[in-house]
Amino acid sequence: MNKAMLVVMDGLGDRPVRELGGLTPLEAAHTPNLDALAARGITGVMNALGVGQRPGSDTSHLAILGYDIERYYTGRGTIEVAGLGMDLEAGDVALRGNLGTVDDNLTVVDRRAGRITDTGPFVKDLDGLTYEGVTLKVRPGTGHRAGVILRGPNLSFRISDNDPHEVGVKVHEVHPLDDSPEAAFTAKVLNHFLAEAHLLLAQNPLNQERVAKGLPPANYLLGRGAGYYKKIEPFPARYGLKACTIAGGGLYKGVGSFTGMDVIPVPGATGLPDTDIEAKFRAGLTALAGPYDFAFVHVKATDTFGEDGDYLGKMNFINKIDLAFELLLDAPHLLAVTADHSTPCALKKHSGDPVPIMMVGEGLVRTDDVSQFGERACGRGALGRLTGLQVMPEIINLLGLAKLIGD
Amino acid sequence: MNKAMLVVMDGLGDRPVRELGGLTPLEAAHTPNLDALAARGITGVMNALGVGQRPGSDTSHLAILGYDIERYYTGRGTIEVAGLGMDLEAGDVALRGNLGTVDDNLTVVDRRAGRITDTGPFVKDLDGLTYEGVTLKVRPGTGHRAGVILRGPNLSFRISDNDPHEVGVKVHEVHPLDDSPEAAFTAKVLNHFLAEAHLLLAQNPLNQERVAKGLPPANYLLGRGAGYYKKIEPFPARYGLKACTIAGGGLYKGVGSFTGMDVIPVPGATGLPDTDIEAKFRAGLTALAGPYDFAFVHVKATDTFGEDGDYLGKMNFINKIDLAFELLLDAPHLLAVTADHSTPCALKKHSGDPVPIMMVGEGLVRTDDVSQFGERACGRGALGRLTGLQVMPEIINLLGLAKLIGD
Repeated sequence: MNKAMLVVMDGLGDRPVRELGGLTPLEAAHTPNLDALAARGITGVMNALGVGQRPGSDTSHLAILGYDIERYYTGRGTIEVAGLGMDLEAGDVALRGNLGTVDDNLTVVDRRAGRITDTGPFVKDLDGLTYEGVTLKVRPGTGHRAGVILRGPNLSFRISDNDPHEVGVKVHEVHPLDDSPEAAFTAKVLNHFLAEAHLLLAQNPLNQERVAKGLPPANYLLGRGAGYYKKIEPFPARYGLKACTIAGGGLYKGVGSFTGMDVIPVPGATGLPDTDIEAKFRAGLTALAGPYDFAFVHVKATDTFGEDGDYLGKMNFINKIDLAFELLLDAPHLLAVTADHSTPCALKKHSGDPVPIMMVGEGLVRTDDVSQFGERACGRGALGRLTGLQVMPEIINLLGLAKLIGD
Repeated sequence: MNKAMLVVMDGLGDRPVRELGGLTPLEAAHTPNLDALAARGITGVMNALGVGQRPGSDTSHLAILGYDIERYYTGRGTIEVAGLGMDLEAGDVALRGNLGTVDDNLTVVDRRAGRITDTGPFVKDLDGLTYEGVTLKVRPGTGHRAGVILRGPNLSFRISDNDPHEVGVKVHEVHPLDDSPEAAFTAKVLNHFLAEAHLLLAQNPLNQERVAKGLPPANYLLGRGAGYYKKIEPFPARYGLKACTIAGGGLYKGVGSFTGMDVIPVPGATGLPDTDIEAKFRAGLTALAGPYDFAFVHVKATDTFGEDGDYLGKMNFINKIDLAFELLLDAPHLLAVTADHSTPCALKKHSGDPVPIMMVGEGLVRTDDVSQFGERACGRGALGRLTGLQVMPEIINLLGLAKLIGD
């Protein structure tokens, strides 16, 4: 039994909600399976990036998987393009892209081009453009999304977003974020590509069809979150565990690819409230029954409900998650269950409040007196208050795989 | 509700006292208001400088306010002169000063010159002396205290105290603490100033009057805690919170000035057991009802009782503090309550034992099962065991003001 499943429920942690009788959505939810696991395991609370620190979803996952963000995080773009299967090389700059709609004055009308569902027929015209020795590589993502890579000499990721992150304002010029010639060069090259891309996209017959139908054309490439390639020791080599990722959301597949795990596609895993959680857990169990030693399973929609301030939706979705946990009650593996960060409904955004964490595995794990999987209950747990970077060492130790330090 | 009050009770933490039935002074005190707040908030324990580290009052406060002492602490003198409103410039060396009494052999008879109450008429003769391009600046502090600055080129703070910290021994020569020419030069200049100051003080007619009355003359300047100017990012800019300090003791006003807070004078705030705690809390509430976002309120005498080993005095003073906390029960702000360090009556000095901490704010803060504000009770709290540098990030997060790290 030296295999483990790590289940991360995105944005699970919350604050007391008056309308839920002063309970959090997790505390108010009906969670007999999670509670049974808590009773059989050891619990605690965890801040992915440390006490009071407010993590993004990218940084928090890297930390939980054992990668110090000071060393390994270079920007969201890097992880997004990894999730699209784009291979980064040293010197590359990577960005998250959207196809959006701008008017004749380059004012953003729709950041998602009417939530266009496939950017493939559009970005194919952009992929391979060259300018001043730099090649633009673009690959479609889910929905309106795309991955963008600049490849060539003398590039820098220290450039600003051209995506203004809101509608009704003009797209931004990309500008350098430091005084280096590389940043200035990269900004100049990207501005050139964006202008050329706008012309090509506007001429795309599919956009002319969209306009004729009254749909917003996908006529502008909005880029953000520039990052650069950094060599990381892959998760399987680092921990000696053949590892896989099971997720609906693109970012989480990206985290899996970025850290060198296999990303296992699961029909019905959408990253949305309609996602098939049981299918994900079954896929995890199947992977662990097969060649895999470690399965990272991600559930997204808890975060989405938190960002909408929908505490009832969040509670009901947790009820749904708990039903699926019945599949894991008797799993012959170490099971670690936690979240990447809190997304309190009162704040409608990520927060630095710690999240509950538990580790369960008969014979492997000490228990404590906590028999409920909730923010407050786990605050009394014997794991104490962990950081994200402490999670993997704890898992590796419980599996009996930790290296001896000293003699 | 994104305003906060931080109440620090100096030296509050203690060890079990046999005569108090094995309770600490805080546990033995009657504290219904502090306990009610604990029941509504989240609790933990905190070591300002880390587990087992024994902090001074200066270093502990810097850490609690978020300033890493490795980077920002250069010596107590720096903070003391800030508290006296003396502006430090780059290159200055600052010292805490006392006016004391020495005999003809320069043996210290009284380190506080009979607890003289105003050093102003004495230090005026010393302020502005010059020697080898260095100017001596001296300003009176409270009681026997004074702030001392050396200003000029080629100075170093790496010099020893001339204050021997005890009576019956000769005042020390100042000597350099490293091999640099600057430290040797600074020691030489300061020794010159101290000899000249002794002559001037001995000649002061007020001292001749004191001697005639049988009072110890204020005839020697005892200096210690040399520090140097270091630019720090002011607290308001760092956290985006307009901040004020409410304190009786000079050091704590100094901490406030040093970190760029406004220091609000409160009549009756003495830093002594007779201090008007309710007046301080009212001043804090008024500040927060007005333009301030953050109020740091300091209560000193808990530490003084601990240093005297007076556990009954400490307990009774805590009873008095608790009465004042009634004013804060319904305050519409985040309330953080803690201490800078423990001062166990059994030790009569600062110790590295952790102190209790709690944070209270309806809708902002999760609760835990702890309903008593005491060393042991808070040891079970869901905040866990914090360091001083984790306090401000936790407050900023609870206020919903933390910056996102990542995306």
